[in-house]
Amino acid sequence: MHLFYTPDIAPTHPQYFLSEEESKHAIRVLRLEAGDKVELIDGRGGFYNAEIKDAHPKRTILDITSVTTEFNKRNHYLHIAVAPTKNIERTEWFLEKATEIGIDEISLIITQRSERKEVKVDRLNKIITAAIKQSLKAYHPLLNEPIKLNQLLTQPFDGQKFIAHCEPGEKLSLSGQLQPHGKYLILIGPEGDFTPAEIELALESGFKPITLGESRLRTETAALEACFEANFLNRI
Amino acid sequence: MHLFYTPDIAPTHPQYFLSEEESKHAIRVLRLEAGDKVELIDGRGGFYNAEIKDAHPKRTILDITSVTTEFNKRNHYLHIAVAPTKNIERTEWFLEKATEIGIDEISLIITQRSERKEVKVDRLNKIITAAIKQSLKAYHPLLNEPIKLNQLLTQPFDGQKFIAHCEPGEKLSLSGQLQPHGKYLILIGPEGDFTPAEIELALESGFKPITLGESRLRTETAALEACFEANFLNRI
Repeated sequence: MHLFYTPDIAPTHPQYFLSEEESKHAIRVLRLEAGDKVELIDGRGGFYNAEIKDAHPKRTILDITSVTTEFNKRNHYLHIAVAPTKNIERTEWFLEKATEIGIDEISLIITQRSERKEVKVDRLNKIITAAIKQSLKAYHPLLNEPIKLNQLLTQPFDGQKFIAHCEPGEKLSLSGQLQPHGKYLILIGPEGDFTPAEIELALESGFKPITLGESRLRTETAALEACFEANFLNRI
Repeated sequence: MHLFYTPDIAPTHPQYFLSEEESKHAIRVLRLEAGDKVELIDGRGGFYNAEIKDAHPKRTILDITSVTTEFNKRNHYLHIAVAPTKNIERTEWFLEKATEIGIDEISLIITQRSERKEVKVDRLNKIITAAIKQSLKAYHPLLNEPIKLNQLLTQPFDGQKFIAHCEPGEKLSLSGQLQPHGKYLILIGPEGDFTPAEIELALESGFKPITLGESRLRTETAALEACFEANFLNRI
């Protein structure tokens, strides 16, 4: 069944009008007809069953037949702050995979050793939207505008804060630290890692140093590993 | 420091001659000189420190200064059998990421619903080799030639066998099943999943059904999730 992402719908709406673009896609490309069933997600936890009432190629009308709110609501809140990679494709696939596995918020941080300081957030958001449709998620992860690490460190966060870095020093595994069903903010550095000064500042700001295992991981792999671990530890 | 993959070296060798191609790369591109230090991995657990004795652009001579065998030896054996994806790039990044995180053997299985029945194993092996160099792994994962699922199911395997599928039925999580420091073979299906008949045959062949969580994952994401879980459960 075809799934549409419709962020402007609300659970109280009895009908929904597909945009001109979506209408054209539904009727001209997918060849949907009156009576055909479709599904909608609003990105805020709403999952809708709908039926095409008027197969208009510019303004398709849908009858909403049932609504589920808090569809597959996640049992924890995961915010990963990662330095965008020099090759943006690596950041793109991290976003796709993290969305499939489960993530709530992503910040792209600009650090001293970041080779990339600019990103097209719109393009990255499209990748996230495609991934929630593919993996049937009713919640759309929040992708923030790029932010300097120093700024992020000073923002309040009412949960557990971690930093994964490769400098020497005592580090604990998330498995020993993570409080289940909690709220987490995890920092992942750029190619070349955070600078010692950045790590020091993060520790002073209440971030706990963690290890993601013995392997030497690329930035995007480390970010995905952190995403895996947070989700997995909330399953077992 | 520069790292070379040299599968034809042995821990007993006092010297090593770089191939013409590697010599040219080392001397002409990297501009290495006599006395410069380099590292070698043999793909079988051997990690070598070496020093350039003769910076010959066609036949560079290295003195081996120290050897470590069983370098970062893994504490379990993980064999993942996955159907190659229609878009081969998705299989390629699975191989890169699985190599970074930790894997020992990969089989590419041809199933009833496989859209792709042919793969260039040489090209995929180059991706694995690049990944072990990048992530500093002395063991080169074994990539087998593509094999029909039915053939794989009949091969003997002296470890735990699992199948991850999306059909209804009771499934357990790896966390409750996996014996630490063991040997595992995990089957991951194609886009569209295994057929019920294939699943039945796998169960009859001693494979236990597992779930990789509630999310609907793409083939390559499911394979990486399995790789992550097996490694993580052998760390905690």
